[in-house]
Amino acid sequence: MSHTLGDLASRINATLHGDPDCLIEGVAALANASKGTITFLADRRLTKYLKSTRASAVILQDELLGQCPVAALVTDNPYAAYARIASYLHPAKLPQPGVHPSTILGSGTCVDESASIGPGCVLGDGAVIAAGVRLDSACAIGSGVVIGADSHLCSRVTICDEVRIGQRAVIQPGAVIGSDGFGMASENGRWIKVPQLGGVCIGDDVEIGANTTIDRGTLDDTVVEDGVKIDNLVQVAHNVRIGAHTAIAGCTGISGSTLIGRHCKIGGGVGIVGHLRITDHVVLTGMSLVTRSISSPGVYSSGVPVQGNARWNRNCAHLRSLDRLARRLKMLDAQSRNRG
Amino acid sequence: MSHTLGDLASRINATLHGDPDCLIEGVAALANASKGTITFLADRRLTKYLKSTRASAVILQDELLGQCPVAALVTDNPYAAYARIASYLHPAKLPQPGVHPSTILGSGTCVDESASIGPGCVLGDGAVIAAGVRLDSACAIGSGVVIGADSHLCSRVTICDEVRIGQRAVIQPGAVIGSDGFGMASENGRWIKVPQLGGVCIGDDVEIGANTTIDRGTLDDTVVEDGVKIDNLVQVAHNVRIGAHTAIAGCTGISGSTLIGRHCKIGGGVGIVGHLRITDHVVLTGMSLVTRSISSPGVYSSGVPVQGNARWNRNCAHLRSLDRLARRLKMLDAQSRNRG
Amino acid sequence: MSHTLGDLASRINATLHGDPDCLIEGVAALANASKGTITFLADRRLTKYLKSTRASAVILQDELLGQCPVAALVTDNPYAAYARIASYLHPAKLPQPGVHPSTILGSGTCVDESASIGPGCVLGDGAVIAAGVRLDSACAIGSGVVIGADSHLCSRVTICDEVRIGQRAVIQPGAVIGSDGFGMASENGRWIKVPQLGGVCIGDDVEIGANTTIDRGTLDDTVVEDGVKIDNLVQVAHNVRIGAHTAIAGCTGISGSTLIGRHCKIGGGVGIVGHLRITDHVVLTGMSLVTRSISSPGVYSSGVPVQGNARWNRNCAHLRSLDRLARRLKMLDAQSRNRG
Repeated sequence: MSHTLGDLASRINATLHGDPDCLIEGVAALANASKGTITFLADRRLTKYLKSTRASAVILQDELLGQCPVAALVTDNPYAAYARIASYLHPAKLPQPGVHPSTILGSGTCVDESASIGPGCVLGDGAVIAAGVRLDSACAIGSGVVIGADSHLCSRVTICDEVRIGQRAVIQPGAVIGSDGFGMASENGRWIKVPQLGGVCIGDDVEIGANTTIDRGTLDDTVVEDGVKIDNLVQVAHNVRIGAHTAIAGCTGISGSTLIGRHCKIGGGVGIVGHLRITDHVVLTGMSLVTRSISSPGVYSSGVPVQGNARWNRNCAHLRSLDRLARRLKMLDAQSRNRG
Repeated sequence: MSHTLGDLASRINATLHGDPDCLIEGVAALANASKGTITFLADRRLTKYLKSTRASAVILQDELLGQCPVAALVTDNPYAAYARIASYLHPAKLPQPGVHPSTILGSGTCVDESASIGPGCVLGDGAVIAAGVRLDSACAIGSGVVIGADSHLCSRVTICDEVRIGQRAVIQPGAVIGSDGFGMASENGRWIKVPQLGGVCIGDDVEIGANTTIDRGTLDDTVVEDGVKIDNLVQVAHNVRIGAHTAIAGCTGISGSTLIGRHCKIGGGVGIVGHLRITDHVVLTGMSLVTRSISSPGVYSSGVPVQGNARWNRNCAHLRSLDRLARRLKMLDAQSRNRG
Repeated sequence: MSHTLGDLASRINATLHGDPDCLIEGVAALANASKGTITFLADRRLTKYLKSTRASAVILQDELLGQCPVAALVTDNPYAAYARIASYLHPAKLPQPGVHPSTILGSGTCVDESASIGPGCVLGDGAVIAAGVRLDSACAIGSGVVIGADSHLCSRVTICDEVRIGQRAVIQPGAVIGSDGFGMASENGRWIKVPQLGGVCIGDDVEIGANTTIDRGTLDDTVVEDGVKIDNLVQVAHNVRIGAHTAIAGCTGISGSTLIGRHCKIGGGVGIVGHLRITDHVVLTGMSLVTRSISSPGVYSSGVPVQGNARWNRNCAHLRSLDRLARRLKMLDAQSRNRG
């Protein structure tokens, strides 16, 4: 399905420099685009590829217009504009509405007639599937689950009992939402399971990555607010609340009852201990460890980048006796002052 | 299903202060409990909420009895008592016994008539499912697997061939038990797979988290002893042994052939290298790295908490030349001694 | 199925010292082998067990022949030889060819008649399954997927649309290949999903661990080259390329568009940020963080091993003000020079 440049420009409110009737069939990367495609330039380090692009059009900012050898769509935010155009030119193939005969429906399930439930799914009693929802295949949906309109669950997603998912969610394969929180009481050296009686509430426009896990709350709900984006293999423990429009990269773990603010960006492999409060607009770089609440917006880090192993081992040995080293320095300092 | 306070007190051997006929319908958190619920106070920092609680009763320690405005159940370990009462007041809804018609049984499987096997499961040849076992849905159970009495496998759990699970296990969705260990021999720059011929043996009263993976042994078994609790997204490699009543938080990885003691508490995001021996009663805080065996009980750490990014980068730069800094200090020290 | 020592020796081109007609029924570990088994000695630290082994034969290097009390197969690389012999003595039980009646085939799927598709699988439209492929159970295979000859997908593997898998792949349970990359554009504080239009291309002889996730590319493919071995719970982001014969241990995360060289060994819990280039023959030890490209082969590290918690906290406090400490040292140094 091809579209004219004029149509594309008007969709993203861009200023078109070039032939509005030029036909565009798809998107491509700047460096290896071909005729009939549209590309974008958002990262200035790639400007060197602009001159020789073979794309039919480039989405870019006004300052780069002079260097563009082909048609241009000028906008302040080329990457966002590209995202919209890519979705428009390459719409997801929607399956036919209806419930595949191999899918097993519990009693009292309510599936909107515009929803598409693929093969091999299991829907628990009383589950409610809204209009336009798509379940690809082999999803396990618990009792009393509610899935909002136009949400898309990929294959093999598990939604446990009573979990509520908002509208336009995208949940990647293997994700588990509503597993029991890790709550235990210690008694005479043994662990007693604390029943996890809360639920999980996922807002609108949330994306959840492959094999990510989100536990249900102990008494209240675990909450993921609107517009949150979570990558693969992320662990969200019970009673966590993630504020709207926060993004969390892969392999990160958030311990129980921690509250994450809105518009945060959390890097990969980050660990956040439990019962903390992290304010809005906090950025955590990769492999950071957060052990205290953060009340000021900003960028925080504690990841240590690699060195050659031999050098690292020497440095690390001193790190492990840094207290002694610091005390020696303090003593020398005092001696020096006395001498001074 | 409501119970009298008198009944609840006797179940946990607590001393009741208040009306034994008062009816309790459920549990709630101290700060937002309502009439007809029972709550608990175990964390002293929450004592401020005690005075204004609207719960009908509070489980607490003797010292706090004087501050309790409502009925009280006095016990030494309020959290454990709460766990028992919550289980009692909110019992898991047990499905009907029997095998769902959509489930596929191999030849020679043996399913106790009191077990409940949900829809879409696959049971391999010769699998043995004991009394009271519950498989929710879409579980894949390999050949020769044995699952002990009253164990509960949530949806989409995978148990590979010949794995043995004890009694009263709880296995959260997406967990994989018995995948091949990561064993390879190097030959001329290529990897040759080493067959993983051992099994996995899971004891009684074990809980395993969502999307956690436990590999089978190379020749002997990987072993998880009684009462061990493992959180989500934990990796347990081949030939590991985890001692009884140890708890392991999310995103932790334990490499091959390492032996973990009993009653250990392992924080989230911890890494433990292979072929180590960690004694009983070891606590590892979050994001610690263990590269040597630990022979003394105690608390061990190596996680570095975050700082503001600019300050961290300055500190980290010095860390990466700490050896030079230490040598400079040593020289100054020597000079100072000579001078002294 | 037993084999003679002579047969085994010729299979691995080893020099046999002992009776070629001796029958061997299986493999075992050096320390607890019994009669009729063959074992190996590759780790010199285990030499102490050689003298008392009850195995019928030992695979070892020439230097140790003199200490071997039983028959010996002498070879330069005992571990690789053992791997081959273990596969030979303990071949995987192959299921019958054919498609289980419970499996759901899309339109235009093409399954070779020698392939075995277990119960509860779902194959999308146009999927192509080559000769000798084995899918254990409950796998979800997307549209247009191609799986090469003799590959083995364990239970509950998800392969998303259009992903291509080479020959002789082994994919452990719960792995997800082809989930959407974590690509988003920011616009007015909200995230817009960037369509992930690329695929994933997996080479020959690749092994992928349980619950590992490999995202599809944004425009081009994510690529895993021949002979790569990936452990459990590893995250491979969009547009990553992993060079041939590289091995990656569990819980590691590789961010988008990073290129990993050939013959690398990446430890567990490692984090690698996006858009980097790591050359061939790089070794990263456990829990390392890579924030810059690596252009020289070698061993790199940044993981900090644990200490007792109290001592670590003191050291860590100084680490967090290391810049001040370094400046104090510099001042003292200057004073000392002035004085000198």
